Amino acid sequence: MARKLARKLARAAFQGELGAFSQEAAHQLMGKEITVVPCPTFEEVFRRLKASEVDAAVIPIENTLHGSVHENYDHLLRYELPITGETKVRIVHNLIAAPGVKFRDLRRVFSHPVALNQCLRFFELNPGLERISFYDTAGSVKMIMEENLRDAAAIASSVAAGIYGGRILKRSIEDDRQNFTRFFLLQPEAPRSRSVEPKEWKTSLVFTTRNIPGALFRALSAFALRDLSLSKIESRPLRGKPWEYLFYVDLLGRAEEQRVRNALAHLGELADFMRVLGSYPRGA
Amino acid sequence: MARKLARKLARAAFQGELGAFSQEAAHQLMGKEITVVPCPTFEEVFRRLKASEVDAAVIPIENTLHGSVHENYDHLLRYELPITGETKVRIVHNLIAAPGVKFRDLRRVFSHPVALNQCLRFFELNPGLERISFYDTAGSVKMIMEENLRDAAAIASSVAAGIYGGRILKRSIEDDRQNFTRFFLLQPEAPRSRSVEPKEWKTSLVFTTRNIPGALFRALSAFALRDLSLSKIESRPLRGKPWEYLFYVDLLGRAEEQRVRNALAHLGELADFMRVLGSYPRGA
Repeated sequence: MARKLARKLARAAFQGELGAFSQEAAHQLMGKEITVVPCPTFEEVFRRLKASEVDAAVIPIENTLHGSVHENYDHLLRYELPITGETKVRIVHNLIAAPGVKFRDLRRVFSHPVALNQCLRFFELNPGLERISFYDTAGSVKMIMEENLRDAAAIASSVAAGIYGGRILKRSIEDDRQNFTRFFLLQPEAPRSRSVEPKEWKTSLVFTTRNIPGALFRALSAFALRDLSLSKIESRPLRGKPWEYLFYVDLLGRAEEQRVRNALAHLGELADFMRVLGSYPRGA
Repeated sequence: MARKLARKLARAAFQGELGAFSQEAAHQLMGKEITVVPCPTFEEVFRRLKASEVDAAVIPIENTLHGSVHENYDHLLRYELPITGETKVRIVHNLIAAPGVKFRDLRRVFSHPVALNQCLRFFELNPGLERISFYDTAGSVKMIMEENLRDAAAIASSVAAGIYGGRILKRSIEDDRQNFTRFFLLQPEAPRSRSVEPKEWKTSLVFTTRNIPGALFRALSAFALRDLSLSKIESRPLRGKPWEYLFYVDLLGRAEEQRVRNALAHLGELADFMRVLGSYPRGA
Protein backbone atom coordinates (compact mmCIF):
# COMPACT_ATOMS: atom_id res chain seq x y z
CA MET A 1 0.00 0.00 0.00
CA ALA A 2 2.81 2.37 0.93
CA ARG A 3 4.55 1.50 -2.29
CA LYS A 4 1.37 2.21 -4.19
CA LEU A 5 0.98 5.64 -2.61
CA ALA A 6 4.62 6.49 -3.25
CA ARG A 7 4.33 5.73 -6.96
CA LYS A 8 3.35 8.80 -8.90
CA LEU A 9 0.28 8.24 -11.04
CA ALA A 10 0.34 9.37 -14.67
CA ARG A 11 -1.65 12.55 -15.21
CA ALA A 12 -4.08 12.53 -18.16
CA ALA A 13 -5.80 15.70 -19.37
CA PHE A 14 -9.16 15.64 -21.20
CA GLN A 15 -11.87 18.12 -22.09
CA GLY A 16 -15.02 18.15 -19.98
CA GLU A 17 -15.97 17.53 -16.38
CA LEU A 18 -15.30 14.39 -14.34
CA GLY A 19 -17.39 11.59 -15.83
CA ALA A 20 -17.02 12.74 -19.44
CA PHE A 21 -16.78 10.05 -22.12
CA SER A 22 -13.17 11.17 -22.59
CA GLN A 23 -12.44 10.00 -19.04
CA GLU A 24 -13.75 6.53 -19.93
CA ALA A 25 -11.41 6.58 -22.96
CA ALA A 26 -8.49 7.65 -20.72
CA HIS A 27 -9.06 4.61 -18.46
CA GLN A 28 -9.30 2.27 -21.47
CA LEU A 29 -5.98 3.64 -22.77
CA MET A 30 -4.02 4.09 -19.52
CA GLY A 31 -5.73 1.91 -16.92
CA LYS A 32 -7.77 2.74 -13.82
CA GLU A 33 -4.87 4.13 -11.78
CA ILE A 34 -4.30 7.53 -13.30
CA THR A 35 -4.78 11.09 -12.13
CA VAL A 36 -7.44 12.63 -14.35
CA VAL A 37 -7.15 16.35 -15.17
CA PRO A 38 -10.44 17.77 -16.53
CA CYS A 39 -10.02 20.90 -18.70
CA PRO A 40 -12.60 23.43 -19.92
CA THR A 41 -11.49 23.43 -23.59
CA PHE A 42 -9.61 21.23 -26.09
CA GLU A 43 -7.07 24.05 -26.49
CA GLU A 44 -6.33 23.84 -22.77
CA VAL A 45 -5.82 20.05 -23.02
CA PHE A 46 -3.19 20.54 -25.74
CA ARG A 47 -1.57 23.50 -23.97
CA ARG A 48 -1.16 21.54 -20.73
CA LEU A 49 0.49 18.60 -22.45
CA LYS A 50 2.76 20.91 -24.47
CA ALA A 51 3.79 22.63 -21.21
CA SER A 52 4.47 19.21 -19.59
CA GLU A 53 1.89 19.91 -16.87
CA VAL A 54 0.42 16.48 -17.61
CA ASP A 55 1.85 13.21 -18.98
CA ALA A 56 -0.80 12.48 -21.58
CA ALA A 57 -3.89 13.87 -23.26
CA VAL A 58 -6.98 12.04 -24.47
CA ILE A 59 -9.03 13.71 -27.20
CA PRO A 60 -12.09 12.64 -29.22
CA ILE A 61 -11.36 12.67 -32.96
CA GLU A 62 -14.52 11.31 -34.58
CA ASN A 63 -17.98 10.02 -33.81
CA THR A 64 -19.80 7.54 -36.03
CA LEU A 65 -22.93 9.75 -36.19
CA HIS A 66 -21.62 13.29 -35.81
CA GLY A 67 -18.40 13.02 -37.83
CA SER A 68 -14.96 14.42 -37.06
CA VAL A 69 -14.05 16.75 -34.23
CA HIS A 70 -12.46 19.27 -36.58
CA GLU A 71 -11.09 21.53 -33.90
CA ASN A 72 -8.83 18.69 -32.72
CA TYR A 73 -7.46 18.10 -36.22
CA ASP A 74 -6.44 21.77 -36.23
CA HIS A 75 -4.78 21.43 -32.80
CA LEU A 76 -2.91 18.25 -33.85
CA LEU A 77 -1.30 20.23 -36.66
CA ARG A 78 -0.44 23.23 -34.51
CA TYR A 79 0.82 21.61 -31.29
CA GLU A 80 2.88 18.77 -32.85
CA LEU A 81 2.13 16.29 -30.06
CA PRO A 82 2.45 12.69 -31.27
CA ILE A 83 -0.48 10.27 -31.32
CA THR A 84 0.57 7.14 -29.43
CA GLY A 85 -2.72 5.26 -29.10
CA GLU A 86 -6.38 5.09 -30.06
CA THR A 87 -9.53 3.60 -28.57
CA LYS A 88 -13.26 3.54 -29.18
CA VAL A 89 -16.03 4.15 -26.65
CA ARG A 90 -19.66 3.15 -27.16
CA ILE A 91 -21.72 6.26 -26.40
CA VAL A 92 -24.76 5.54 -24.22
CA HIS A 93 -26.90 8.53 -23.31
CA ASN A 94 -28.93 8.42 -20.10
CA LEU A 95 -31.56 10.80 -18.76
CA ILE A 96 -30.37 11.83 -15.29
CA ALA A 97 -32.09 13.90 -12.60
CA ALA A 98 -31.66 14.73 -8.92
CA PRO A 99 -32.96 12.08 -6.48
CA GLY A 100 -36.71 12.37 -5.94
CA VAL A 101 -37.37 14.12 -9.25
CA LYS A 102 -39.94 12.19 -11.29
CA PHE A 103 -40.09 11.97 -15.07
CA ARG A 104 -43.46 13.81 -15.07
CA ASP A 105 -41.83 16.75 -13.19
CA LEU A 106 -39.44 17.43 -16.07
CA ARG A 107 -39.73 20.54 -18.25
CA ARG A 108 -36.10 21.07 -19.36
CA VAL A 109 -33.24 18.81 -20.46
CA PHE A 110 -29.63 20.07 -20.43
CA SER A 111 -26.71 18.56 -22.32
CA HIS A 112 -24.01 19.14 -24.92
CA PRO A 113 -25.65 20.01 -28.28
CA VAL A 114 -24.17 16.89 -29.93
CA ALA A 115 -25.73 14.68 -27.24
CA LEU A 116 -29.12 16.46 -27.56
CA ASN A 117 -28.96 15.89 -31.33
CA GLN A 118 -28.32 12.18 -30.80
CA CYS A 119 -31.57 11.74 -28.83
CA LEU A 120 -34.02 13.25 -31.33
CA ARG A 121 -36.51 10.38 -31.15
CA PHE A 122 -36.75 10.77 -27.38
CA PHE A 123 -37.60 14.47 -27.81
CA GLU A 124 -40.13 13.71 -30.54
CA LEU A 125 -41.89 11.32 -28.17
CA ASN A 126 -41.74 13.92 -25.37
CA PRO A 127 -42.56 17.24 -27.05
CA GLY A 128 -43.14 18.96 -23.68
CA LEU A 129 -39.41 18.82 -22.86
CA GLU A 130 -37.31 21.85 -23.77
CA ARG A 131 -33.77 21.10 -25.03
CA ILE A 132 -31.13 23.42 -23.57
CA SER A 133 -27.53 23.43 -24.83
CA PHE A 134 -24.82 23.12 -22.20
CA TYR A 135 -21.04 23.07 -22.60
CA ASP A 136 -20.57 19.47 -21.45
CA THR A 137 -22.57 16.26 -20.87
CA ALA A 138 -21.14 15.44 -17.42
CA GLY A 139 -21.10 19.16 -16.60
CA SER A 140 -24.86 19.29 -17.12
CA VAL A 141 -25.32 16.58 -14.45
CA LYS A 142 -23.03 18.48 -12.09
CA MET A 143 -25.05 21.67 -12.66
CA ILE A 144 -28.53 20.19 -12.11
CA MET A 145 -27.26 18.55 -8.90
CA GLU A 146 -25.52 21.69 -7.57
CA GLU A 147 -28.55 23.87 -8.36
CA ASN A 148 -30.87 21.07 -7.15
CA LEU A 149 -33.19 21.67 -10.11
CA ARG A 150 -36.57 19.94 -9.64
CA ASP A 151 -37.91 20.40 -13.21
CA ALA A 152 -34.75 19.55 -15.14
CA ALA A 153 -32.70 16.55 -16.22
CA ALA A 154 -29.34 16.08 -17.95
CA ILE A 155 -28.20 13.68 -20.67
CA ALA A 156 -24.86 12.04 -19.87
CA SER A 157 -23.02 8.80 -19.12
CA SER A 158 -23.90 6.49 -16.23
CA VAL A 159 -20.42 7.25 -14.84
CA ALA A 160 -21.38 10.94 -14.60
CA ALA A 161 -24.62 9.99 -12.78
CA GLY A 162 -22.54 8.05 -10.25
CA ILE A 163 -19.96 10.78 -9.68
CA TYR A 164 -22.46 13.56 -9.00
CA GLY A 165 -25.13 11.45 -7.28
CA GLY A 166 -27.76 11.82 -9.99
CA ARG A 167 -30.43 9.16 -10.61
CA ILE A 168 -30.94 7.61 -14.03
CA LEU A 169 -34.60 8.05 -15.06
CA LYS A 170 -34.20 6.49 -18.53
CA ARG A 171 -31.26 4.46 -19.85
CA SER A 172 -29.89 4.48 -23.40
CA ILE A 173 -32.14 7.13 -24.97
CA GLU A 174 -29.82 7.64 -27.98
CA ASP A 175 -31.42 7.25 -31.44
CA ASP A 176 -28.79 4.93 -32.82
CA ARG A 177 -26.91 2.18 -30.99
CA GLN A 178 -24.15 2.40 -33.61
CA ASN A 179 -22.87 5.41 -31.71
CA PHE A 180 -19.14 5.20 -31.06
CA THR A 181 -16.50 7.83 -30.49
CA ARG A 182 -12.87 7.28 -31.41
CA PHE A 183 -10.25 8.86 -29.14
CA PHE A 184 -6.55 9.57 -29.58
CA LEU A 185 -3.96 9.27 -26.82
CA LEU A 186 -1.22 11.91 -27.10
CA GLN A 187 2.11 11.58 -25.31
CA PRO A 188 5.33 13.54 -25.80
CA GLU A 189 7.15 10.25 -26.38
CA ALA A 190 5.82 6.88 -27.47
CA PRO A 191 6.20 4.18 -24.76
CA ARG A 192 9.49 2.37 -25.45
CA SER A 193 8.22 -1.07 -24.57
CA ARG A 194 4.69 -2.32 -24.59
CA SER A 195 3.62 -5.29 -22.45
CA VAL A 196 2.27 -7.04 -25.55
CA GLU A 197 3.73 -6.13 -28.95
CA PRO A 198 0.67 -5.18 -31.00
CA LYS A 199 0.08 -6.93 -34.30
CA GLU A 200 -1.77 -4.18 -36.10
CA TRP A 201 -0.72 -0.56 -36.30
CA LYS A 202 -2.11 2.64 -37.70
CA THR A 203 -0.29 5.74 -38.87
CA SER A 204 -1.87 9.21 -39.04
CA LEU A 205 -0.50 11.97 -41.25
CA VAL A 206 -1.41 15.31 -42.76
CA PHE A 207 -0.47 16.75 -46.16
CA THR A 208 -1.32 19.43 -48.68
CA THR A 209 -1.17 19.02 -52.45
CA ARG A 210 -0.34 21.44 -55.21
CA ASN A 211 -3.55 22.98 -56.53
CA ILE A 212 -3.50 21.16 -59.89
CA PRO A 213 -5.88 18.62 -61.48
CA GLY A 214 -5.36 15.08 -60.21
CA ALA A 215 -3.17 16.20 -57.28
CA LEU A 216 -5.10 14.25 -54.62
CA PHE A 217 -5.31 11.21 -56.93
CA ARG A 218 -1.55 11.24 -57.37
CA ALA A 219 -0.99 11.70 -53.62
CA LEU A 220 -3.20 8.69 -52.87
CA SER A 221 -1.26 6.63 -55.43
CA ALA A 222 1.61 6.57 -52.91
CA PHE A 223 -0.59 4.33 -50.75
CA ALA A 224 -2.72 2.51 -53.36
CA LEU A 225 0.27 1.37 -55.46
CA ARG A 226 1.65 -0.30 -52.32
CA ASP A 227 -1.70 -1.87 -51.33
CA LEU A 228 -1.77 0.20 -48.16
CA SER A 229 -5.29 0.58 -46.86
CA LEU A 230 -6.61 3.97 -45.74
CA SER A 231 -9.08 3.80 -42.87
CA LYS A 232 -9.94 7.51 -43.00
CA ILE A 233 -9.42 10.69 -45.01
CA GLU A 234 -10.57 14.11 -43.88
CA SER A 235 -10.14 17.56 -45.43
CA ARG A 236 -9.77 20.84 -43.53
CA PRO A 237 -9.45 24.37 -44.93
CA LEU A 238 -5.92 25.73 -45.24
CA ARG A 239 -5.68 29.03 -43.34
CA GLY A 240 -4.69 31.99 -45.48
CA LYS A 241 -5.35 30.08 -48.74
CA PRO A 242 -9.11 30.20 -49.33
CA TRP A 243 -10.52 27.07 -51.07
CA GLU A 244 -7.34 25.06 -50.55
CA TYR A 245 -7.24 22.13 -48.13
CA LEU A 246 -5.19 20.03 -45.74
CA PHE A 247 -5.80 16.27 -45.94
CA TYR A 248 -5.61 14.10 -42.82
CA VAL A 249 -5.16 10.40 -43.51
CA ASP A 250 -5.13 7.30 -41.29
CA LEU A 251 -3.54 4.23 -42.86
CA LEU A 252 -3.16 0.66 -41.66
CA GLY A 253 0.53 0.06 -41.03
CA ARG A 254 3.45 1.23 -38.91
CA ALA A 255 5.65 4.18 -39.88
CA GLU A 256 8.76 2.01 -39.36
CA GLU A 257 7.67 -0.68 -41.86
CA GLN A 258 9.56 -0.54 -45.17
CA ARG A 259 6.38 -0.41 -47.23
CA VAL A 260 5.00 2.53 -45.21
CA ARG A 261 8.38 4.30 -45.29
CA ASN A 262 8.42 4.00 -49.05
CA ALA A 263 4.87 5.35 -49.29
CA LEU A 264 5.71 8.31 -47.04
CA ALA A 265 8.85 9.09 -49.07
CA HIS A 266 6.78 8.95 -52.27
CA LEU A 267 4.07 11.19 -50.78
CA GLY A 268 6.83 13.57 -49.69
CA GLU A 269 7.79 14.01 -53.36
CA LEU A 270 4.21 14.71 -54.41
CA ALA A 271 2.99 16.86 -51.53
CA ASP A 272 3.70 20.50 -50.82
CA PHE A 273 3.81 19.69 -47.12
CA MET A 274 3.63 16.41 -45.19
CA ARG A 275 3.92 15.44 -41.53
CA VAL A 276 3.42 12.15 -39.67
CA LEU A 277 1.19 12.76 -36.65
CA GLY A 278 1.90 9.41 -35.03
CA SER A 279 2.06 5.62 -35.39
CA TYR A 280 0.14 3.60 -32.81
CA PRO A 281 -1.43 0.19 -32.13
CA ARG A 282 -4.82 -0.18 -33.78
CA GLY A 283 -7.69 0.05 -31.26
CA ALA A 284 -9.96 -2.93 -30.65
CA MET B 1 -44.95 50.13 -61.43
CA ALA B 2 -48.32 48.37 -61.41
CA ARG B 3 -46.80 45.58 -63.43
CA LYS B 4 -43.97 45.30 -60.95
CA LEU B 5 -46.34 45.00 -58.00
CA ALA B 6 -48.45 42.42 -59.78
CA ARG B 7 -45.43 40.18 -60.42
CA LYS B 8 -45.02 37.67 -57.63
CA LEU B 9 -41.59 37.83 -56.08
CA ALA B 10 -39.62 34.60 -55.70
CA ARG B 11 -39.53 33.37 -52.10
CA ALA B 12 -36.10 32.35 -50.76
CA ALA B 13 -35.71 30.52 -47.45
CA PHE B 14 -32.53 30.73 -45.37
CA GLN B 15 -31.45 29.94 -41.81
CA GLY B 16 -31.14 32.84 -39.37
CA GLU B 17 -32.83 36.16 -38.78
CA LEU B 18 -33.22 39.03 -41.25
CA GLY B 19 -29.76 40.42 -41.94
CA ALA B 20 -27.98 37.05 -41.76
CA PHE B 21 -25.06 36.48 -44.15
CA SER B 22 -27.29 33.94 -45.89
CA GLN B 23 -29.63 36.79 -46.84
CA GLU B 24 -26.73 38.62 -48.51
CA ALA B 25 -25.99 35.41 -50.43
CA ALA B 26 -29.66 35.12 -51.44
CA HIS B 27 -29.55 38.64 -52.95
CA GLN B 28 -26.30 37.87 -54.79
CA LEU B 29 -27.88 34.74 -56.25
CA MET B 30 -31.43 35.94 -56.93
CA GLY B 31 -31.31 39.75 -57.02
CA LYS B 32 -32.67 42.40 -54.67
CA GLU B 33 -36.34 41.81 -55.46
CA ILE B 34 -37.13 38.62 -53.61
CA THR B 35 -39.25 37.73 -50.63
CA VAL B 36 -36.90 36.47 -47.93
CA VAL B 37 -38.15 33.75 -45.59
CA PRO B 38 -35.96 33.47 -42.44
CA CYS B 39 -36.09 30.03 -40.76
CA PRO B 40 -34.91 28.92 -37.29
CA THR B 41 -32.99 25.81 -38.49
CA PHE B 42 -31.35 24.39 -41.62
CA GLU B 43 -33.75 21.46 -41.42
CA GLU B 44 -36.68 23.91 -41.66
CA VAL B 45 -35.11 25.55 -44.75
CA PHE B 46 -34.93 22.18 -46.53
CA ARG B 47 -38.40 21.14 -45.33
CA ARG B 48 -40.01 24.32 -46.68
CA LEU B 49 -38.43 23.96 -50.10
CA LYS B 50 -39.34 20.25 -50.27
CA ALA B 51 -42.97 21.20 -49.38
CA SER B 52 -42.95 23.93 -52.11
CA GLU B 53 -43.69 26.61 -49.51
CA VAL B 54 -40.79 28.60 -51.01
CA ASP B 55 -39.23 28.76 -54.48
CA ALA B 56 -35.59 28.50 -53.45
CA ALA B 57 -33.29 27.88 -50.49
CA VAL B 58 -29.88 29.41 -49.78
CA ILE B 59 -27.58 27.45 -47.48
CA PRO B 60 -23.96 27.93 -46.34
CA ILE B 61 -21.79 24.93 -47.24
CA GLU B 62 -18.26 25.93 -46.21
CA ASN B 63 -16.26 28.71 -44.64
CA THR B 64 -12.58 29.28 -45.39
CA LEU B 65 -11.69 29.34 -41.67
CA HIS B 66 -14.28 27.10 -40.02
CA GLY B 67 -14.59 24.41 -42.68
CA SER B 68 -17.68 22.65 -43.99
CA VAL B 69 -21.20 22.99 -42.64
CA HIS B 70 -21.59 19.24 -42.23
CA GLU B 71 -25.23 19.31 -41.27
CA ASN B 72 -26.07 20.70 -44.71
CA TYR B 73 -24.16 17.93 -46.48
CA ASP B 74 -26.36 15.46 -44.59
CA HIS B 75 -29.54 17.36 -45.58
CA LEU B 76 -28.46 17.51 -49.26
CA LEU B 77 -28.30 13.73 -49.29
CA ARG B 78 -31.62 13.25 -47.51
CA TYR B 79 -33.83 15.88 -49.18
CA GLU B 80 -32.66 15.40 -52.80
CA LEU B 81 -33.08 19.07 -53.73
CA PRO B 82 -30.82 20.03 -56.64
CA ILE B 83 -28.05 22.60 -56.33
CA THR B 84 -28.57 25.21 -59.08
CA GLY B 85 -26.09 27.91 -58.10
CA GLU B 86 -23.26 28.94 -55.78
CA THR B 87 -21.85 32.22 -54.49
CA LYS B 88 -19.26 33.45 -52.01
CA VAL B 89 -19.74 36.15 -49.36
CA ARG B 90 -16.88 37.91 -47.61
CA ILE B 91 -17.62 37.68 -43.88
CA VAL B 92 -17.07 40.98 -42.07
CA HIS B 93 -17.82 40.94 -38.35
CA ASN B 94 -18.85 44.21 -36.67
CA LEU B 95 -19.35 45.03 -33.01
CA ILE B 96 -22.87 46.43 -32.74
CA ALA B 97 -24.70 47.99 -29.77
CA ALA B 98 -27.85 49.99 -29.08
CA PRO B 99 -27.61 53.74 -29.82
CA GLY B 100 -25.99 55.65 -26.95
CA VAL B 101 -24.11 52.60 -25.61
CA LYS B 102 -20.36 53.36 -25.42
CA PHE B 103 -17.56 50.83 -25.88
CA ARG B 104 -16.49 51.34 -22.25
CA ASP B 105 -20.01 50.36 -21.06
CA LEU B 106 -19.70 46.87 -22.56
CA ARG B 107 -19.41 43.77 -20.38
CA ARG B 108 -20.93 41.07 -22.62
CA VAL B 109 -20.80 40.24 -26.33
CA PHE B 110 -23.42 37.97 -27.94
CA SER B 111 -23.08 36.13 -31.24
CA HIS B 112 -23.09 32.76 -32.97
CA PRO B 113 -20.22 30.61 -31.58
CA VAL B 114 -18.51 30.47 -35.00
CA ALA B 115 -18.51 34.29 -35.21
CA LEU B 116 -17.16 34.59 -31.63
CA ASN B 117 -14.40 32.15 -32.56
CA GLN B 118 -13.45 34.26 -35.58
CA CYS B 119 -12.77 37.35 -33.43
CA LEU B 120 -10.33 35.83 -30.93
CA ARG B 121 -7.76 38.62 -31.23
CA PHE B 122 -10.41 41.22 -30.39
CA PHE B 123 -11.30 39.27 -27.22
CA GLU B 124 -7.62 38.85 -26.27
CA LEU B 125 -7.20 42.64 -26.50
CA ASN B 126 -10.38 43.16 -24.45
CA PRO B 127 -10.24 40.54 -21.68
CA GLY B 128 -13.02 42.25 -19.72
CA LEU B 129 -15.63 41.26 -22.31
CA GLU B 130 -17.54 38.04 -21.70
CA ARG B 131 -18.35 35.97 -24.82
CA ILE B 132 -21.90 34.58 -24.85
CA SER B 133 -23.06 32.07 -27.49
CA PHE B 134 -26.28 32.92 -29.30
CA TYR B 135 -28.13 30.97 -31.99
CA ASP B 136 -27.58 33.54 -34.76
CA THR B 137 -25.41 36.58 -35.58
CA ALA B 138 -28.24 38.85 -36.80
CA GLY B 139 -30.51 37.41 -34.08
CA SER B 140 -28.06 38.64 -31.44
CA VAL B 141 -28.44 42.22 -32.77
CA LYS B 142 -32.23 41.85 -32.76
CA MET B 143 -32.13 40.62 -29.14
CA ILE B 144 -29.86 43.36 -27.71
CA MET B 145 -32.06 45.97 -29.43
CA GLU B 146 -35.37 44.46 -28.26
CA GLU B 147 -34.08 44.07 -24.69
CA ASN B 148 -32.36 47.48 -24.93
CA LEU B 149 -29.26 46.06 -23.23
CA ARG B 150 -26.89 48.83 -22.05
CA ASP B 151 -23.87 46.63 -21.19
CA ALA B 152 -23.94 44.33 -24.19
CA ALA B 153 -23.02 44.25 -27.87
CA ALA B 154 -23.53 41.78 -30.70
CA ILE B 155 -21.21 40.62 -33.50
CA ALA B 156 -22.93 40.59 -36.89
CA SER B 157 -23.06 42.07 -40.40
CA SER B 158 -23.52 45.78 -41.11
CA VAL B 159 -26.79 44.82 -42.83
CA ALA B 160 -28.06 43.41 -39.51
CA ALA B 161 -27.07 46.67 -37.75
CA GLY B 162 -29.11 48.62 -40.32
CA ILE B 163 -32.20 46.38 -40.11
CA TYR B 164 -32.49 46.48 -36.30
CA GLY B 165 -31.22 50.04 -35.77
CA GLY B 166 -28.02 49.06 -33.99
CA ARG B 167 -24.90 51.25 -34.09
CA ILE B 168 -21.54 49.87 -35.21
CA LEU B 169 -18.94 50.51 -32.47
CA LYS B 170 -16.08 48.72 -34.25
CA ARG B 171 -15.92 47.57 -37.86
CA SER B 172 -14.25 44.42 -39.18
CA ILE B 173 -13.06 42.86 -35.91
CA GLU B 174 -12.53 39.40 -37.48
CA ASP B 175 -9.07 37.84 -37.01
CA ASP B 176 -8.56 36.97 -40.63
CA ARG B 177 -9.68 38.94 -43.70
CA GLN B 178 -9.52 35.73 -45.75
CA ASN B 179 -12.89 34.87 -44.29
CA PHE B 180 -15.38 33.80 -46.97
CA THR B 181 -18.44 31.61 -46.86
CA ARG B 182 -19.62 29.66 -49.86
CA PHE B 183 -23.38 29.24 -50.31
CA PHE B 184 -25.49 26.90 -52.43
CA LEU B 185 -28.73 27.90 -54.13
CA LEU B 186 -31.26 25.06 -54.18
CA GLN B 187 -34.24 25.05 -56.52
CA PRO B 188 -36.62 22.20 -57.41
CA GLU B 189 -35.80 22.77 -61.09
CA ALA B 190 -32.78 24.42 -62.69
CA PRO B 191 -33.67 27.64 -64.54
CA ARG B 192 -34.28 26.69 -68.20
CA SER B 193 -32.65 29.75 -69.68
CA ARG B 194 -30.06 32.01 -68.13
CA SER B 195 -29.61 35.62 -69.24
CA VAL B 196 -25.92 34.97 -69.91
CA GLU B 197 -24.80 31.41 -70.64
CA PRO B 198 -22.06 30.78 -68.05
CA LYS B 199 -18.66 29.64 -69.28
CA GLU B 200 -17.59 27.67 -66.25
CA TRP B 201 -19.65 25.07 -64.43
CA LYS B 202 -19.31 22.95 -61.36
CA THR B 203 -20.91 19.62 -60.54
CA SER B 204 -21.44 18.31 -57.00
CA LEU B 205 -21.92 14.64 -56.24
CA VAL B 206 -21.83 12.12 -53.41
CA PHE B 207 -20.65 8.50 -53.44
CA THR B 208 -19.60 5.61 -51.24
CA THR B 209 -16.89 3.10 -52.07
CA ARG B 210 -16.51 -0.55 -51.24
CA ASN B 211 -14.46 -0.92 -48.07
CA ILE B 212 -11.36 -2.34 -49.78
CA PRO B 213 -7.75 -1.03 -50.10
CA GLY B 214 -7.38 1.57 -52.85
CA ALA B 215 -11.14 2.08 -53.24
CA LEU B 216 -11.03 5.88 -52.97
CA PHE B 217 -7.97 6.01 -55.24
CA ARG B 218 -9.82 4.01 -57.90
CA ALA B 219 -12.94 6.18 -57.52
CA LEU B 220 -10.87 9.35 -58.04
CA SER B 221 -9.29 7.80 -61.14
CA ALA B 222 -12.64 8.35 -62.88
CA PHE B 223 -11.89 12.08 -62.71
CA ALA B 224 -8.08 12.15 -62.82
CA LEU B 225 -7.80 9.96 -65.94
CA ARG B 226 -10.02 12.51 -67.74
CA ASP B 227 -8.12 15.53 -66.42
CA LEU B 228 -11.19 16.69 -64.53
CA SER B 229 -10.25 18.98 -61.65
CA LEU B 230 -11.78 18.49 -58.20
CA SER B 231 -12.29 21.72 -56.27
CA LYS B 232 -13.37 19.98 -53.05
CA ILE B 233 -13.67 16.58 -51.40
CA GLU B 234 -15.32 16.01 -48.05
CA SER B 235 -16.01 12.85 -46.07
CA ARG B 236 -18.99 12.23 -43.78
CA PRO B 237 -19.74 9.18 -41.66
CA LEU B 238 -22.14 6.67 -43.16
CA ARG B 239 -25.06 6.10 -40.76
CA GLY B 240 -25.43 2.52 -39.59
CA LYS B 241 -21.96 1.53 -40.86
CA PRO B 242 -19.46 2.72 -38.24
CA TRP B 243 -16.08 3.80 -39.69
CA GLU B 244 -17.37 3.89 -43.28
CA TYR B 245 -17.81 7.17 -45.13
CA LEU B 246 -19.70 9.09 -47.78
CA PHE B 247 -17.57 11.26 -50.05
CA TYR B 248 -18.86 14.58 -51.36
CA VAL B 249 -17.00 15.91 -54.39
CA ASP B 250 -17.18 19.18 -56.35
CA LEU B 251 -15.63 19.05 -59.81
CA LEU B 252 -15.10 21.68 -62.48
CA GLY B 253 -17.36 20.83 -65.39
CA ARG B 254 -21.02 20.42 -66.36
CA ALA B 255 -22.90 17.15 -65.90
CA GLU B 256 -24.08 17.34 -69.55
CA GLU B 257 -20.51 17.51 -70.99
CA GLN B 258 -19.38 14.25 -72.58
CA ARG B 259 -16.19 14.12 -70.49
CA VAL B 260 -18.12 14.54 -67.24
CA ARG B 261 -20.78 12.03 -68.33
CA ASN B 262 -18.04 9.49 -69.00
CA ALA B 263 -16.47 10.16 -65.59
CA LEU B 264 -19.81 9.75 -63.83
CA ALA B 265 -20.53 6.51 -65.68
CA HIS B 266 -17.08 5.23 -64.72
CA LEU B 267 -17.56 6.25 -61.08
CA GLY B 268 -20.95 4.51 -61.19
CA GLU B 269 -19.13 1.25 -61.97
CA LEU B 270 -16.67 1.69 -59.09
CA ALA B 271 -18.92 3.10 -56.38
CA ASP B 272 -21.44 1.30 -54.20
CA PHE B 273 -23.72 4.32 -54.41
CA MET B 274 -23.50 7.56 -56.41
CA ARG B 275 -25.76 10.57 -56.88
CA VAL B 276 -25.32 13.91 -58.67
CA LEU B 277 -26.42 16.72 -56.33
CA GLY B 278 -26.44 19.40 -59.03
CA SER B 279 -24.62 21.11 -61.85
CA TYR B 280 -24.41 24.92 -61.68
CA PRO B 281 -22.48 27.96 -62.93
CA ARG B 282 -19.24 28.48 -61.03
CA GLY B 283 -19.47 31.42 -58.58
CA ALA B 284 -17.29 34.52 -59.06
